[in-house]
Amino acid sequence: MNRVITISREFGSGGRTIGKRVAERLGIPCYDQELIEKIEEKSGLAKEFIEERGEYTLRGGWLANAFADRSMNGLSVQDYLWTVQRKTILELAEQGPCVIVGRCADYILEGRADLLKVFIHAPIETRAKRIVEKYGESAEAPEKRLRDKDVRRSAYYRFYTDMEWGIAKNYDVALDSGTLGLDRCVDIITSLY
Amino acid sequence: MNRVITISREFGSGGRTIGKRVAERLGIPCYDQELIEKIEEKSGLAKEFIEERGEYTLRGGWLANAFADRSMNGLSVQDYLWTVQRKTILELAEQGPCVIVGRCADYILEGRADLLKVFIHAPIETRAKRIVEKYGESAEAPEKRLRDKDVRRSAYYRFYTDMEWGIAKNYDVALDSGTLGLDRCVDIITSLY
Repeated sequence: MNRVITISREFGSGGRTIGKRVAERLGIPCYDQELIEKIEEKSGLAKEFIEERGEYTLRGGWLANAFADRSMNGLSVQDYLWTVQRKTILELAEQGPCVIVGRCADYILEGRADLLKVFIHAPIETRAKRIVEKYGESAEAPEKRLRDKDVRRSAYYRFYTDMEWGIAKNYDVALDSGTLGLDRCVDIITSLY
Repeated sequence: MNRVITISREFGSGGRTIGKRVAERLGIPCYDQELIEKIEEKSGLAKEFIEERGEYTLRGGWLANAFADRSMNGLSVQDYLWTVQRKTILELAEQGPCVIVGRCADYILEGRADLLKVFIHAPIETRAKRIVEKYGESAEAPEKRLRDKDVRRSAYYRFYTDMEWGIAKNYDVALDSGTLGLDRCVDIITSLY
């Protein structure tokens, strides 16, 4: 079984950057944007849809989600995306050691790869600062955008994995990138590989 | 403000051992048994009561706990222990850098010390093996003892802190001592101090 690092991260925590740096240092591929492109190719779905609906539920809570784009047999486009995403992640993990960012890879690869499961989080103020620097201001306050993203990401995780998101027990290592800094997170993860 | 490492840990995860080794390596005191002795001295309560009721609710669920040893004004012996425990932890953190194991020290010292908040957990099989080695067999299966301890410890934490126990976001670093091994946990925590 290949050694694979999965990085689950809160939006704005810098988990993606950490994943890239870890992969660079270890000389192994990091699947993030590349993963989205592969899923795009296989599924025929739009990149924006994959980015958004491959990790987040819809806004509007349970009811909006239960009926959203669900066809008569109960399969939604989001469910279809989930199956393609799952298959793609399983294939990538079979190809060789790698880092995979997000998309429930920790859950999907459990028992199928030699996993190092990482969770990256940060205080909301640090994340707010980061998303404004990275994605710019928007009409909505950054804290509100983050809370909305947090709720929808954890709902997505629960829906497809039936597990709670962000519980320490589900990871080998969970780090606060705000208090520790990105570099230290990279050091720790690299040292554990 | 003194630099203090708080170690919250699941029963049987080796968090206590990790705390001691970290403190030894850093040349600072580790308060665990010594903390209990100080609380014993101050409170006049028995050591066994402090060990048990300073981190765990009673068996028997919510109702048993709500009415247990509560006097007319609503203060229980456990509440009294909490206040002594809290005061002792605050005093120790004022004296100098140290490691404090358990007893909601992370919550009690928030904003009052320069904290490194650590959570140590491990898979139930690893913990079961560890507690049998350490405390011997008992009539109850080790897994059952652990589940009971987990439930009562997290109930205690929620009751006195109004926070969920074991959520990654509440700690700077959360480590699986089962998959990583105790030595690696000691290395990581020491490097972050």
